[in-house]
Amino acid sequence: MSVLVVGSVALDSVKTTKEEHHRLLGGSASYASVAASFFAPTRMVGIVGEDFPPEYISLLESRGVDLAGLQRVSGKTFAWSGEYELDMNRRKTLSVELNVFEQFRPDLPAAWKTTPIILLANIAPVLQLHVLDQLDSPKFVVADTMDLWIHTAKDDLLALLKRVDLLVLNDSEAKELTGRDNLIQAGREMLRLGPKYVAIKKGEHGCLLFGEDLLFAAPAYPVEGVVDPTGAGDCFIGGFVGSLAATGQTDFSALKRAVLYGTATASFDVEDFSLRRLQSASKDELLGRVETLKELVRVEF
Amino acid sequence: MSVLVVGSVALDSVKTTKEEHHRLLGGSASYASVAASFFAPTRMVGIVGEDFPPEYISLLESRGVDLAGLQRVSGKTFAWSGEYELDMNRRKTLSVELNVFEQFRPDLPAAWKTTPIILLANIAPVLQLHVLDQLDSPKFVVADTMDLWIHTAKDDLLALLKRVDLLVLNDSEAKELTGRDNLIQAGREMLRLGPKYVAIKKGEHGCLLFGEDLLFAAPAYPVEGVVDPTGAGDCFIGGFVGSLAATGQTDFSALKRAVLYGTATASFDVEDFSLRRLQSASKDELLGRVETLKELVRVEF
Repeated sequence: MSVLVVGSVALDSVKTTKEEHHRLLGGSASYASVAASFFAPTRMVGIVGEDFPPEYISLLESRGVDLAGLQRVSGKTFAWSGEYELDMNRRKTLSVELNVFEQFRPDLPAAWKTTPIILLANIAPVLQLHVLDQLDSPKFVVADTMDLWIHTAKDDLLALLKRVDLLVLNDSEAKELTGRDNLIQAGREMLRLGPKYVAIKKGEHGCLLFGEDLLFAAPAYPVEGVVDPTGAGDCFIGGFVGSLAATGQTDFSALKRAVLYGTATASFDVEDFSLRRLQSASKDELLGRVETLKELVRVEF
Repeated sequence: MSVLVVGSVALDSVKTTKEEHHRLLGGSASYASVAASFFAPTRMVGIVGEDFPPEYISLLESRGVDLAGLQRVSGKTFAWSGEYELDMNRRKTLSVELNVFEQFRPDLPAAWKTTPIILLANIAPVLQLHVLDQLDSPKFVVADTMDLWIHTAKDDLLALLKRVDLLVLNDSEAKELTGRDNLIQAGREMLRLGPKYVAIKKGEHGCLLFGEDLLFAAPAYPVEGVVDPTGAGDCFIGGFVGSLAATGQTDFSALKRAVLYGTATASFDVEDFSLRRLQSASKDELLGRVETLKELVRVEF
């Protein structure tokens, strides 16, 4: 079955201690759509301006991403710029130019309203809610979010949480949303806010997946040479929803497998800037990393 | 087979945001010995002063810990005091009174020099080396360490690493010792310093175990109510060596199982001050938590 990805499309400037690159393909929808495209037909909803490079359109199309929902309007594309410290877990945002993204209203092509697997990638909760309002009984809805919305749009976010199957966010965001320092407590508490499942991304420490009386701990893929972690969370959740769509299964066992597919997908993302490494990965390489993840936790008693 | 534990014995004062307790049984040898005693006959080497409470001797004896190597001398017992922030991952040491510990020289009873499984719990590397010098071909030697020794006794520590089978330390210490922010790089680099295996403890994020071309990732036990994390690392490694001694196996598969036994043992430690919760745990409860850890990472494909 198909996946619908709604999110941002951006031109990123990224600086690490070693390199600096400008006008890279970025944004939550771009990363997540390319990630999902490894597993299932992927439909992308986003907005770009006149300056959006045609080669990025070609890149997305070469992955089979359906761009019928990509709005192309006059003005400049959303631009983000950030810098990583030597410790890649720390980054600061240098500038944000919303540009055409400010007028983004994610209206779905009519034929897409029945898409079964939905990823509301990281955008304002009010826009995520607007997408939900257009959908015709989706099978599984995943919502990503970030600290900005916890601080500036908490009511919208709480309204959203009552209507999604899975909330995904990172560990510091989970602590902020719940006021809990203990991630197990934070995960359980977020379940009480509405979603059937919660995934807490812990970067190099992997991921915790919560369901009612259910808990799964996944390791991170052991990457030695992290070049640029931008988009890793989006690739994780893109691979996650893509793998659900591939089989149509959405029970807890399927979600656990999806965590490993997402983890393997994200591991390619961090090995180079933008989507450079992931777009050159083969499906076999990706599945090889899933095997590594399974091996990493194997114990024989 | 038996385990030999050499380390500190202390009277701890611990303050959390909720409670404060004084003259608790503490020290790396105390914690590790009680943890090891769940699995195998345990011999403890340490030093205490005249003020050491007889009930703590009774507690250790009730666990079957052989105290023939516990030196009882005139003077006061090593005293440590620390305070935890609301985020239990952060603690500050308020005071350290070495007292009789200053004169500690870990001389082994003659009959103990052939003990097969050795835990050099956290004490000065020069003392850990002194223990190694007395041993008669041990089967497996584990050394714990801490940031203090990385800063003040690095040469001794490096000499020690060439003579142990496994080095265990926490994630921030691994970064300090190697100058690497990436834990996978740090683990691989520490293997080049001498030990056949390295275990990096990551607290709530579990543990990474490295061998040459080998890697195992273990989750933490999902504890919701952390009361006092003091001694968790010592209990982890105590349970680890105890479980090795129980079977006598020391290949990588056995080490992986030992990580889970150690993790389960440490999970009791954090649920109350000092050894209060661990000493009341049954072996069946402990094995139940090992089953939970196995279940926590199980994925069916």
